[in-house]
Amino acid sequence: MKKFEEKTIASKRIYEGKVINLKVDDVSLPNGKTSKRELVEHPGAVAIVAFTPENKIIMVEQYRKALERSIIEIPAGKLEKGEAPEYTAMRELEEETGYTAEKLELIQSFSTSPGFADEVIHLFFADGLKKATNGAVLDEDEFVELLEVSVEEAEQMMKDNRIYDAKTAFAVMWAKQRLSIGN
Amino acid sequence: MKKFEEKTIASKRIYEGKVINLKVDDVSLPNGKTSKRELVEHPGAVAIVAFTPENKIIMVEQYRKALERSIIEIPAGKLEKGEAPEYTAMRELEEETGYTAEKLELIQSFSTSPGFADEVIHLFFADGLKKATNGAVLDEDEFVELLEVSVEEAEQMMKDNRIYDAKTAFAVMWAKQRLSIGN
Repeated sequence: MKKFEEKTIASKRIYEGKVINLKVDDVSLPNGKTSKRELVEHPGAVAIVAFTPENKIIMVEQYRKALERSIIEIPAGKLEKGEAPEYTAMRELEEETGYTAEKLELIQSFSTSPGFADEVIHLFFADGLKKATNGAVLDEDEFVELLEVSVEEAEQMMKDNRIYDAKTAFAVMWAKQRLSIGN
Repeated sequence: MKKFEEKTIASKRIYEGKVINLKVDDVSLPNGKTSKRELVEHPGAVAIVAFTPENKIIMVEQYRKALERSIIEIPAGKLEKGEAPEYTAMRELEEETGYTAEKLELIQSFSTSPGFADEVIHLFFADGLKKATNGAVLDEDEFVELLEVSVEEAEQMMKDNRIYDAKTAFAVMWAKQRLSIGN
């Protein structure tokens, strides 16, 4: 899979932050020429598709500073260093939604912005959902509203751009297919 | 849609690049506390779902430095300043694949990484495909291999992580649904 490889000649670290780092690499192209690549490093994340007993998708509304508005997404969270994605997914599901799952099934891992970032999201299906005794446990600086959304409502929210991110758009399509097979 | 708004108190520009910029904002949270947000600015992009007469999806394989490997994606390209997304999509389709479309239909716009980037991808369906007289016209520094992939092959490529980015994963699900309705 090293077709068209771009070899690193030099790498300059521009910024090291809390969530992301930025570096600029000089690369040599397959034709011998050189170019620059601006690259964001991100620890990766998990996201979870979970259905209530009524086959509604559990979602959260939160403010996204990068977009300067709130959007509706499936539950998700960044990977902590050394944490297995399954563990992060179980933790985020319980903390953000107050549900626990009997079993997690990996649906798909995907890169969100392969042109400039190494972020990969591991998307899980949470099977056998139960209300945790504690309910959702949010950090005091976390502002999130919980929603339960049918596939039809989710499709309308996509048209209205209230659902507006790639992982949730994919999750809605996947949920539609899964529920139509299951029924 | 300003629920849970995070107001900007201060904004520091860290880097201005060819493709992305980076800034760090101090924000005030709904509870009055402050926090930092690391934010990547990106011009946005278009991506195109296009079927050959045999209902294969047109894809391109290219090296992605951020992932340090080549992956298989639907044709895509960055928005140029002031360019309408439809125009960019027509241009990228013809340049990358050598096909022109009679008509473009917006499938969905979505944010790729709402946690740290403002990048939005406008995903189009290209209808009425014709081979352009010129064929694909690549920049001399562009290394891209053209592929025609059936939905079944694309689903296998997702399992093998050769298709590995969110826009293409979404596009494959959409194509599957579209072709099953059409047939």
